[in-house]
Amino acid sequence: MSTMGNPTNVFWHECAVGKAERQKLINQQGCVVWITGLSGSGKSTLACSLDRELHSRGKLSYVLDGDNVRHGLNKNLGFSAEDRTENIRRVGEVATLFADAGLICIASLISPYRKDRDACRAMLTDANFIEAMLLSELFSVNSVCVLLGKEAIHIIYLQVFMNMTLEVCEERDPKGLYKLARAGKIKGFTGIDDPYEPPLNCEINIEQKDGVCPTPSEMAGQVVSCLDENGFLHACN
Amino acid sequence: MSTMGNPTNVFWHECAVGKAERQKLINQQGCVVWITGLSGSGKSTLACSLDRELHSRGKLSYVLDGDNVRHGLNKNLGFSAEDRTENIRRVGEVATLFADAGLICIASLISPYRKDRDACRAMLTDANFIEAMLLSELFSVNSVCVLLGKEAIHIIYLQVFMNMTLEVCEERDPKGLYKLARAGKIKGFTGIDDPYEPPLNCEINIEQKDGVCPTPSEMAGQVVSCLDENGFLHACN
Repeated sequence: MSTMGNPTNVFWHECAVGKAERQKLINQQGCVVWITGLSGSGKSTLACSLDRELHSRGKLSYVLDGDNVRHGLNKNLGFSAEDRTENIRRVGEVATLFADAGLICIASLISPYRKDRDACRAMLTDANFIEAMLLSELFSVNSVCVLLGKEAIHIIYLQVFMNMTLEVCEERDPKGLYKLARAGKIKGFTGIDDPYEPPLNCEINIEQKDGVCPTPSEMAGQVVSCLDENGFLHACN
Repeated sequence: MSTMGNPTNVFWHECAVGKAERQKLINQQGCVVWITGLSGSGKSTLACSLDRELHSRGKLSYVLDGDNVRHGLNKNLGFSAEDRTENIRRVGEVATLFADAGLICIASLISPYRKDRDACRAMLTDANFIEAMLLSELFSVNSVCVLLGKEAIHIIYLQVFMNMTLEVCEERDPKGLYKLARAGKIKGFTGIDDPYEPPLNCEINIEQKDGVCPTPSEMAGQVVSCLDENGFLHACN
């Protein structure tokens, strides 16, 4: 047990079962697949398809959908800049808990601002980075293991950019929101009168090929390959 | 996809993999074990012991510790009445997500007020109650299954009351907080100058027997038995 930062009188309890043990139990490695992109870019479609594909491989995953979370954990948040940031922060914190529990957590949110996404990435890597650097071990971003005693340290945040043009998304307009935004009935709509800042360095880029959008299954396959290559589909030895 | 309540323009996405499928994958049933009691009553000790015992039985559990969560998800909350309520609400919402993911989520928080604990219980049962009542099926609180097509509906919130006297907790004072509270250096400390409202109906009551406190292993055993009797340690058929 140790005291930590603020608030005072709040202690950190180390618990008996560690992440490595949970991962061994379910033979996978906890991580976060963070799907970002415009409304209508296919985030939820990919999340569902990926969830299904992982399940068919016997892997335990869970989807945190930005919209769904607004009906529960984040139902007391609106759409001001401050509330949007807090919305993403909370999802990032919950995703971190899920990854720590050993699950492959699929977070699907527009998350339009780089600083908010970067804050989530930092949340998921800071502790690891610090430990790794203290031990002066080699640390390679986006591939994997730095051995720390018997435990392995990972970069566990994979960002997926739904790299679809505004035109494609607006033509799909599955929820009719672009129409409302163009008519001025929704204000501050991402892509219309609020910016979307595309990732500068994402792990996975989903885009059209020769003007054709990948199918849900192709998109999921691209992510699963990345997870597999990085060892997430098996427990670390 | 459907529109739901407030805020408007936020949709609910149904995802491909359901709770029943996840539960089948890991052969258990998602639920929340909510441990409430005074500081020093043994909540964290039970949480750890229970986590270890479940792991040894091949079950995937995860501890949400009130103190730990204050370093992450709830780090922007203080100790005002409003913030305490929000602290518990968020843990309840996250526990609900973990239960939905199929895990046995062990939430360990003083959670001194009945209304806050009741709100969490409601969070975890409302949807089920509504569905069950719509179908006019028999619904038995605290035991279990109402069959709904192929899915089973459960009461998935088990409250554990660490029923230890203030004297016992204060003598233990593992964090030295009672001393500080008695010296007036911490204000609004539960049991000293802020009330603890004991549960009126908890599923599990942990107490001394002939003046002797149960061991961590005995406490965990009591909870595991309850989980087992209620079918949580296997997937529902």
